[in-house]
Amino acid sequence: MEEMPRPDLPQLLVIKPPGLFNYGDPFAAKFAVLRAWESPLPLPRFLSDHARSAPALLCSAATRVTAAVLDLLPSLRIIVTTSAGLNHIDLPECRRRGVAVANAGEVFSDDVADAAVGLALAVLRKVSAADRFVRRGRWAEEGDFALGSKLAGKRVGIVGLGSIGLRVAKRLEAFGCPISYNSRTKKPSVSYPFYANVYELTANSDILIICCALTEQTHHMIDKSILLALGKDGILINVGRGAIIDEKELVQSLMQGDIRGAGLDVFENEPNVPKELLSLDNVILSPHGSVIGPGRVDHGAIPLNGLVAF
Amino acid sequence: MEEMPRPDLPQLLVIKPPGLFNYGDPFAAKFAVLRAWESPLPLPRFLSDHARSAPALLCSAATRVTAAVLDLLPSLRIIVTTSAGLNHIDLPECRRRGVAVANAGEVFSDDVADAAVGLALAVLRKVSAADRFVRRGRWAEEGDFALGSKLAGKRVGIVGLGSIGLRVAKRLEAFGCPISYNSRTKKPSVSYPFYANVYELTANSDILIICCALTEQTHHMIDKSILLALGKDGILINVGRGAIIDEKELVQSLMQGDIRGAGLDVFENEPNVPKELLSLDNVILSPHGSVIGPGRVDHGAIPLNGLVAF
Repeated sequence: MEEMPRPDLPQLLVIKPPGLFNYGDPFAAKFAVLRAWESPLPLPRFLSDHARSAPALLCSAATRVTAAVLDLLPSLRIIVTTSAGLNHIDLPECRRRGVAVANAGEVFSDDVADAAVGLALAVLRKVSAADRFVRRGRWAEEGDFALGSKLAGKRVGIVGLGSIGLRVAKRLEAFGCPISYNSRTKKPSVSYPFYANVYELTANSDILIICCALTEQTHHMIDKSILLALGKDGILINVGRGAIIDEKELVQSLMQGDIRGAGLDVFENEPNVPKELLSLDNVILSPHGSVIGPGRVDHGAIPLNGLVAF
Repeated sequence: MEEMPRPDLPQLLVIKPPGLFNYGDPFAAKFAVLRAWESPLPLPRFLSDHARSAPALLCSAATRVTAAVLDLLPSLRIIVTTSAGLNHIDLPECRRRGVAVANAGEVFSDDVADAAVGLALAVLRKVSAADRFVRRGRWAEEGDFALGSKLAGKRVGIVGLGSIGLRVAKRLEAFGCPISYNSRTKKPSVSYPFYANVYELTANSDILIICCALTEQTHHMIDKSILLALGKDGILINVGRGAIIDEKELVQSLMQGDIRGAGLDVFENEPNVPKELLSLDNVILSPHGSVIGPGRVDHGAIPLNGLVAF
């Protein structure tokens, strides 16, 4: 059942609980939290019955904030998303209605960059397949596992050299990887080679790492031609958003060996993953887990300073 | 059947095929290779019947070269091991008999350092457990996977600051990890804090990475007291040799949650892995695969210059 709002506190609408709610409700003392996911009502009914006066919405990347949702929230003044990406929020509609939008900024950038490097190492060295090989007793029965591939010297192409891409570059330089990048504009502050288009970058890379935002321009930017340019020894890492890649073409490429492997933290239709990938050894599947939450020992990763100051 | 040695070429004894033999026999043109593993004879019989005049032995870490083996090889002048470690060879006996020993030197150091970082990331972020979670369809059924832990800021303690340990340090500095180390002697060339004993290092580390050689002094150096000093949030990575850790105590610690997790490339009794580990989610199991072999695209990793010059 939904809680009744406490009249002495400002209302905070939460449609689906972001991951940080796994560890309790850190807002209970400061806000009257409207917990839509606990209500038996259909969402539109809940919103129109209980959230018409809510000035603030807290969401994660899993909550789509469309014009239809905004229509039901006439008092809304601010949306705070716990994600860095904003593709789940209809920004032009927010702008038109004067609703402010705050995101996680760079709070997760280190973690997402770590995830990208971890996925690259895991694909090159077949970490999950090797782990399965040992767990199934095959090492003792069959002998040596297939050898992995070296990271040092691999040419890394970074798509999107923002706060995440820059951190990926810094880390992989320490592994002896030459770095190049593509982004909307050349960055005067870095000396890495710049490619004005993704195809050229890919043709000159062994490992392509997607760190950009999902926008109309980047939707399905990684298509069949890019995958073919990456080639049979190429590896694709995606810590951006699933729909930046044409997922059907990626599945084909991985099944046919048109590319060597992929490390995927994001998918087009999360939490659904193409079933063809589930049995492939040349892919590492990660459940959109690049973002590290406020676990027992990891503090400082809650990007809600803006909201707390609301 | 064993091949007959070609009298025009020097004999090279190989007891078990090193991993590089998976890709053919790169020595056939220069040596008469005595392939002991292909013979139906028991090894001592093969050695005394066919290898008494062999001057050279090529082996990997999987071949124990004991005094008993050396007794059967009176003409032996050199042993070349494709490993960096030498713990499988009775060095005092070789010295006494005037048998030279050559190892892989630093050829694999980058790869092993990459493996250490990859295992640390994989343990912190539960890469294999997350991959299993997705493959079993649990993401769609059960929702968010348990959050991982941050790498940035974790205090890393390196045991053994040789060519591998130094490379691990360089990589993890780029992730924002403060580095300390223990080794036989303080290294004047580095500024990382030095701890003269492993216990003190461990008590001041969140991640302990074993990069040292297995010797009488390091055998079971990581015992129960060290594991307790590492503590409930601590992570242990081993890319050295299995017997540096008291494996029974490690299994207990992982099962009881005395430490948070482990990434293990090496084990005490390879290829046998303690069966208790096979069902644990807080461990990444790797089949002594840190060393990258001469696969299709990875050249330069064959440490046999010394032998080819023989």
